Amino acid sequence: MIHPDMATMLAILTTDAAVPVPELDEILRRAVDRSFHRITVDGDTSTNDAVFLLANGAAGVGVETEEDRERFEVAVTAVAVHLARAIVEDGEGASRFVTIRVTGAPTEPQAAQVARTIATSPLVKTAFAGGDPNWGRILAAAGRSGVPFEQERTNLTIDTDPPGNPVELVQGGVPTDFSEEAAAAIFEQQRFQAHLDLGEGDGEAEVWTCDLTHDYVRINADYRT
Amino acid sequence: MIHPDMATMLAILTTDAAVPVPELDEILRRAVDRSFHRITVDGDTSTNDAVFLLANGAAGVGVETEEDRERFEVAVTAVAVHLARAIVEDGEGASRFVTIRVTGAPTEPQAAQVARTIATSPLVKTAFAGGDPNWGRILAAAGRSGVPFEQERTNLTIDTDPPGNPVELVQGGVPTDFSEEAAAAIFEQQRFQAHLDLGEGDGEAEVWTCDLTHDYVRINADYRT
Repeated sequence: MIHPDMATMLAILTTDAAVPVPELDEILRRAVDRSFHRITVDGDTSTNDAVFLLANGAAGVGVETEEDRERFEVAVTAVAVHLARAIVEDGEGASRFVTIRVTGAPTEPQAAQVARTIATSPLVKTAFAGGDPNWGRILAAAGRSGVPFEQERTNLTIDTDPPGNPVELVQGGVPTDFSEEAAAAIFEQQRFQAHLDLGEGDGEAEVWTCDLTHDYVRINADYRT
Repeated sequence: MIHPDMATMLAILTTDAAVPVPELDEILRRAVDRSFHRITVDGDTSTNDAVFLLANGAAGVGVETEEDRERFEVAVTAVAVHLARAIVEDGEGASRFVTIRVTGAPTEPQAAQVARTIATSPLVKTAFAGGDPNWGRILAAAGRSGVPFEQERTNLTIDTDPPGNPVELVQGGVPTDFSEEAAAAIFEQQRFQAHLDLGEGDGEAEVWTCDLTHDYVRINADYRT
């Protein structure tokens, strides 16, 4: 913002498909909303970010039908998600990559808002760093997100990434009799996920975040500008 | 929120003045808005906080005139600010106490919003920990606060606390030719202040914060719940 002689992030997606600019624009905006706008390292907004989607039409094949258009958007979104996740994996001092999945929110934007509040909470992120399956910090962050929900309807499950070893920490708003050992084993992984269901509606969203470690402080405190 | 068997913070103010409850309520709400609602350690909202103002009337003296009422409110606010600042000074891992003062905002709530965004920015708070007078991080945080302002009108000055050694880092949106040594000398203090003027209006507010240190991560990552 102040001295933009280099960009914080430049992402360039290219395709040989022949897609008109207005359509590309719409597709890219939706893809970015579900990828680059769903990641966080420390909650501080970068000042000079740009995502480009360039189509040269070399393939001579356009997106003619609604089905074509949908498949093209799915592909663009998948590439954008891949790149966005890589930014978090490379986050300052990050030792763990965590997917925050929120379902059962009234709307998708509200699901994203809850997920983002959890994903940027210093208390949640330090618990991730410590490998502590601290369900209370996750629910407390959700509670201050500004999205109304009933604690009694919430379920919180953690799982490995890829999934397959779910441990339910909270059911109906109260902690289950979960195995501390099984929960800690998931939080010790380099990648894992936390899934909070609010039980209110059909809105769902994922946000990708990392832990807040000693190395984050070292990199950002000892780096002299 | 989940298991409120003890409170995160309880503040109790007492007075012998004879002030009716509705008046006390109004005065306390304004005082809290300018004290307990103006502090941050890590941006995570506590779940069980309460501030009480109790008046027993033992003095037999009320607040009859507008002047009385104002003096009483100034006194209540001063006590509330004193207690609120003490919470930040005792913040988890805090090694520096920093006053963020924003002036020249369109309104007081907007000044508080800018100050709060600066005061909770992990990049700003790690720069504080590192003793780095990083004006770019402070302006970048202000820029994402949601309050519109023109960079060209901003001035940023840092000073000791209590004041008396001001160093102007930014004037008219660009860095001055400030003495790195003088600036670093301020940021090395245990208490200092940063004053951002937006040049837009009369709104002003102070928020009190601390630095983000290795000890914050240690306390919150290694503490096993």
